[in-house]
Amino acid sequence: MSPNSVFSGLSRRTMLSALAMLPTISATLLPVSASAQAANSAPLASWNDGAAKKAIFDFVRATTDRASPNYVSPEERIAVFDQDGTLWVEHPLYSQVVYCLDRVPAVAAKQPKLKDIEPFKTVLSGNREAMAKLTMPDLEKILAATLTGMTTEEFNADVNKWLETARHPRWKRPYTELIYQPMLEVMRYLRDNGYKIYIVTGGGQDFVRVYAEQVYGIPPEQVVGSMGGTKLGYDKDGKPFLIKEPRLLLNDDHAGKPEGIHLMIGRRPYAAFGNSIGDQQMLEWTAAGAGARLEMLVLHDDAAREYAYGPAAGLPDSKFGTFTQALYDEAKKKGWSVISMKNDWKRIFTFE
Amino acid sequence: MSPNSVFSGLSRRTMLSALAMLPTISATLLPVSASAQAANSAPLASWNDGAAKKAIFDFVRATTDRASPNYVSPEERIAVFDQDGTLWVEHPLYSQVVYCLDRVPAVAAKQPKLKDIEPFKTVLSGNREAMAKLTMPDLEKILAATLTGMTTEEFNADVNKWLETARHPRWKRPYTELIYQPMLEVMRYLRDNGYKIYIVTGGGQDFVRVYAEQVYGIPPEQVVGSMGGTKLGYDKDGKPFLIKEPRLLLNDDHAGKPEGIHLMIGRRPYAAFGNSIGDQQMLEWTAAGAGARLEMLVLHDDAAREYAYGPAAGLPDSKFGTFTQALYDEAKKKGWSVISMKNDWKRIFTFE
Repeated sequence: MSPNSVFSGLSRRTMLSALAMLPTISATLLPVSASAQAANSAPLASWNDGAAKKAIFDFVRATTDRASPNYVSPEERIAVFDQDGTLWVEHPLYSQVVYCLDRVPAVAAKQPKLKDIEPFKTVLSGNREAMAKLTMPDLEKILAATLTGMTTEEFNADVNKWLETARHPRWKRPYTELIYQPMLEVMRYLRDNGYKIYIVTGGGQDFVRVYAEQVYGIPPEQVVGSMGGTKLGYDKDGKPFLIKEPRLLLNDDHAGKPEGIHLMIGRRPYAAFGNSIGDQQMLEWTAAGAGARLEMLVLHDDAAREYAYGPAAGLPDSKFGTFTQALYDEAKKKGWSVISMKNDWKRIFTFE
Repeated sequence: MSPNSVFSGLSRRTMLSALAMLPTISATLLPVSASAQAANSAPLASWNDGAAKKAIFDFVRATTDRASPNYVSPEERIAVFDQDGTLWVEHPLYSQVVYCLDRVPAVAAKQPKLKDIEPFKTVLSGNREAMAKLTMPDLEKILAATLTGMTTEEFNADVNKWLETARHPRWKRPYTELIYQPMLEVMRYLRDNGYKIYIVTGGGQDFVRVYAEQVYGIPPEQVVGSMGGTKLGYDKDGKPFLIKEPRLLLNDDHAGKPEGIHLMIGRRPYAAFGNSIGDQQMLEWTAAGAGARLEMLVLHDDAAREYAYGPAAGLPDSKFGTFTQALYDEAKKKGWSVISMKNDWKRIFTFE
């Protein structure tokens, strides 16, 4: 839907070189078995004691204890979570980009002339080296061709089908299983304390809505993402349908995140979780409100259990540099919490 | 924000001629005393027995009784309500249009050059006859000048201030008191049965959000309306703000209503309430879902207690013709319920 947002914070070179790591298009049929259940009923059971865990407990106490000067009434309790890299794995490639590439054969089957046209010809060849040379305009054409032109119901069905069969190249599991257990626990803990949880993602709103309820317990109306227009039509029996159009309404990334929050929620959040420069403005917007607010950034510093990238991993910004040194410095200066996957999390995934 | 939507279903001539009925700009300070409380705790207490009341009871029973073949799980229970003419009075002019006209002096005070430019010069003159001759492009300029260019917080404060002082020309009461008691009861009854209630209005989303929680008990995140873009900025202290821009994202009227429902909710409603051709597509979209669905249209046929317009009032379509004969015929053909204000409602307003 939104090439800019889907690719934000991620250089073309890095993303395309990651293509080599992906398996070829899968056709294996296995049920999605992702679970949104916490493994342990104690709050934040998968978190080690430390500043990050304490910041969450302190925030909830400050905003839900009626005796607190920073008490927040239940209807105002809004918490927002970025998705890619904050709730689930974003390496080596955003799942939605993999979806779009995987969908090219089906699109070309319906529009055979695409088979001889670039960039579709290259994607269909399966030649990963050639694909790594695709340009950004090429990728935009792929996204437009694979995310629009069908009804909303057809799109949902297709994403569901893909989720059942697609596997992450490292863990060989459905993408919907590669969600971070400690973040599920934060969402549950906030929810148990009256917070309404939203995803605010640079990814496509319609894409994330397909699985967010099953995977995170977040209903479609609480998913804010990059948004495209739809157009109402009627079939021969007079039954209405909505067609997904290649018309971007909002690129829900960077400045688009506070704009998307205003559009979709209309209230300022009290807590915001992210992991990249695309989340910076959302955290700033949250922090600018009065009273107790919580801003947290997930730092990917655990190459053994997940991945290590960004400044604290000792890598230069250019290496999948969504978490830049400048963002790290801003977080330290403003008192935002940085979550170290390596030190703060006892376990990463629900399946461990 | 959205000239098209704000003026939809309403001819320029009809709307402008209504200007003559309005009081001059008011400055009286009185508290808003609108109440969302039902007068009686029995469900639908202000409804007379009849087909409309029965349709509501039957629908709720069918979708909430676990033994019913049309049982709907709680998270799927969505009901949508148009606002103008469905929840509150839309005659002689949409409240938001009155707001925009009332705001012209303040806008001109900040931008003095507007005082010599049309259409602002005419509005500032207070000459209702001259105002009635304004063209649609003139009105669009007024809406753009009065609904954009300020921060979201400034806009909210200004609407709140206006709501405190503005009075309806007939009842001399705040617009927020001119809400239909029977519809408050329907919303309460649906809510008590697990339904999440949304307003889906052609009016400005940001405008309606200012008072929807106080007046209807509907939080900002459950208001879907015509949407404009915002732009993130920072003040000299680095504090972020959002400026309302004259950039229409969605005209939430006619086909825009199902499109807005998809964008903001992502689920098909089970119940939809409207009163005009601007709601027709929303009702069709609702009706196209499987299982038990409820589609209702409010007919303004009570000149004594409110207003009479539309086909059943014996008036031609052109007379404030939002409820056309064609819509009436479609409702009868498809089994949608038509609510007669005159026959179905014991009382109209909460203050009666």
